[in-house]
Parts: sequence; C-alpha cells; structure tokens
Amino acid sequence: MQIAFLLYEQFTALDIVGPYELLRQLPGAESIFVAKQTGPVKNDGGHLHLVAEATLAEVPSPDVLVVGGGMQGTLATANDPQVLDWIRSVHAQSRFTTSVCTGSLILAAAGLLAGKPAACHWAAKDMLEKMGTHYSGERYVREGKIVTAAGVSAGMDMALYLIGELAGRKAAEMIQLSAEYDPDPPFDSGSIKKAAPATVEAVLARLGREIAEG
Amino acid sequence: MQIAFLLYEQFTALDIVGPYELLRQLPGAESIFVAKQTGPVKNDGGHLHLVAEATLAEVPSPDVLVVGGGMQGTLATANDPQVLDWIRSVHAQSRFTTSVCTGSLILAAAGLLAGKPAACHWAAKDMLEKMGTHYSGERYVREGKIVTAAGVSAGMDMALYLIGELAGRKAAEMIQLSAEYDPDPPFDSGSIKKAAPATVEAVLARLGREIAEG
Repeated sequence: MQIAFLLYEQFTALDIVGPYELLRQLPGAESIFVAKQTGPVKNDGGHLHLVAEATLAEVPSPDVLVVGGGMQGTLATANDPQVLDWIRSVHAQSRFTTSVCTGSLILAAAGLLAGKPAACHWAAKDMLEKMGTHYSGERYVREGKIVTAAGVSAGMDMALYLIGELAGRKAAEMIQLSAEYDPDPPFDSGSIKKAAPATVEAVLARLGREIAEG
Repeated sequence: MQIAFLLYEQFTALDIVGPYELLRQLPGAESIFVAKQTGPVKNDGGHLHLVAEATLAEVPSPDVLVVGGGMQGTLATANDPQVLDWIRSVHAQSRFTTSVCTGSLILAAAGLLAGKPAACHWAAKDMLEKMGTHYSGERYVREGKIVTAAGVSAGMDMALYLIGELAGRKAAEMIQLSAEYDPDPPFDSGSIKKAAPATVEAVLARLGREIAEG
C-alpha cells in the first residue's frame, strides 16, 4: 500500500506530519512525499522545509492521497491545472482521497466535492461553500472514498479513522498507543463552538492580516 | 524570542512538528531548526527529511529549547558529548528547556533530570528510571524551567502550556483555535491506562523488533 502526501510551497507542516506519523505505521504501507519537483518544499512559516522524494508523475496511483492545507499555498494550488489533473487521476484509482484543513479547497477545485459535505479549517468555511461544497463543521467527514478533515490538528483524528478502515480497529488502537495520542490540552478553545467570540474575531483578524501580507 | 528545535538522525517527526506548529505562532517568536550539521536530517521512518537551518554553535542561547524523541536516535544522541554539552550550555540561559517523548532521556543524559520527576514515552519509562529520573506518567511535567512531555503527540499539549506561560492564556487560546486543536480521536487507546493489555503487549513487541533491527 502506498500513501502519498502532497507537498506544495506554503503548506502547513502539521497538516502533513500529523497524519504521516500515524499512517506511516500502517502494516505494509509505504509513505511518500510528492510535489511538482523533488527537493525541499517550504512551509507557510517560511523556514521549515520538508523534502519531496518524488514528482507527481512518479507517483501515479497511490492507494491513499493526503492533501494538506495552508492558506496561501492552498489558493495557488487550487489554481494549478497540473496538480488538479494529477489529483483527479489519482482519485480515479485511490482507495481513499483525503484532505486536512484548507486542503479540501484543493479537492473542491479539482471537482471532487461538488454538492457534497466536507470538513475544512473553520476560517475557510465560506470559501468552501462558495465552491459548491457544504461545510459540515465536523472533525472529519467521509463521503464515499473521500475523507476531509477540519483544521490542522484534525488530520490526526482522520488518520486514525483511516487506519481503522484500512487495517482494523486493533491496528488503529496499537498505533494510537504508540503515538501516545491521548490528547489533553490545557485550554478548551480549539473550535468555534468552544472559543470565546473575542478569540474567534482575533484569530480571523490575524489570519486576514497574514493573507493580506502574503 | 528564539525557539530552537533540535534535530538528529532518526528523530520522530511529530515530536518536533507538533510543538513547532503551535510555538511558531507565538507573537514575536522566531523558530529555528538546529542540528550538528545544517541540511536535511532523516527521521525514524527513514524517508521524511526536515532541513536543519543552523548548527549548534550558531544557536548558543535560544529562549526555548525543544528536544524531541525517536528511540534509536535518542540513544545515539544521549551518548553524544557535543550535543549534551550544547544542551547544558543552552539550559544555563534558557527560559524553558523542554522535551517530547524519549527526548527526556537526552535531557537526563545531560544531567538535567537527576532525582526529578519527568514525562517520557511510556515504553521508555524503565530506561528513564534507570537514569535516576522518576517517570511521572503525566501528559507533561514542569520542574522549574524544565518541561517534559509524554510520547509523540503530547508535545502539542505541552506547547500550549508553554504558550500560556510565555504569552498568557489569551494567546494560547487563539493559537489553539488557529490550529483547530479540539482533538476527538475515534478510538480511546492512547495511554497505557486506557489501552487493552493485549494492545500494550503488541506495541511493546513491535517497538522491541524495531529497536533490534535498528
């Protein structure tokens, strides 16, 4: 089984590395980092680099595709015909086509989510809806063989779900224990349902500034 | 404020990228990936590479140090005098010296945890205790300015705690919402208190094989 993680400039690192750290432990699975060109790819923080091992052409038919997010990088990638063609071609043969965070905007741009429910980073929900996709507000959403996750950290919950589907509950529980994934954040502000309205406004303002500044 | 993430061959990627994705959003903070040499550093999965931007000598006094884990890499690093000297020197001036997963074995090898309680990946708790440190079993443990976290994913909970200490609760809640860190794993097997005994045994057997195979 081959699991491909798509990298592009200005990706969000945890969107990729969270699911990777769990999915790479799937018995018999090979993980591979793929991008338009091989070599280091820079994240949205501007200084973390993950190295792409293979080009899109070299990974024509992974069993699982994970498309991460990252606001600026998402918008560029959602307008890149070469990447969208590759995603459509991969999806035609995949067992699961998945996204984390604003990665669902890329799947939507590829035409995979028309009229369907999907998850996304909460701050991009209006953009998702404008692309004809219904923002579900859930941690992750399965629609046929497409699974989309909410913002950044939600990719880990989705990955455990995928492992359960691909290898069974026992394998998923082993991998959860191996990663000691028993989360216990010291604050309870991780969703727009739980955060204070002032916190939501402050984050939206900061994200808006970051997008404006490129 | 400078936050240094130590990379070494066979590190566990999520130990580093989990805390990084949260800490990098600290207002006014600069994150930097540091290793003995600059350039790509390979993880314990054998194919993910993060790029080190600076050598140890180039980062003499970060405000926060994050030392991740990774079983094989930890054992090599815990026996590397150059790295241990650097950690001691950094610790003498840091605001926080921290570890994730088996990274606490490295802090213990540097002499920072003698007689103190600390967190660690559950499967390495006997090793930690043999080094004269008390395994606490908690998600993260603060002892003075040293904060140690449990296995892999626990680094995110620790990072939110650190952000609260360094920049206040409001900043931490904003960053939690930005990363949509409202975890909801589909299984409940993330700690040795919750996992089935057969799951614990199976993971220990697998980790043992991996260590034996190098």
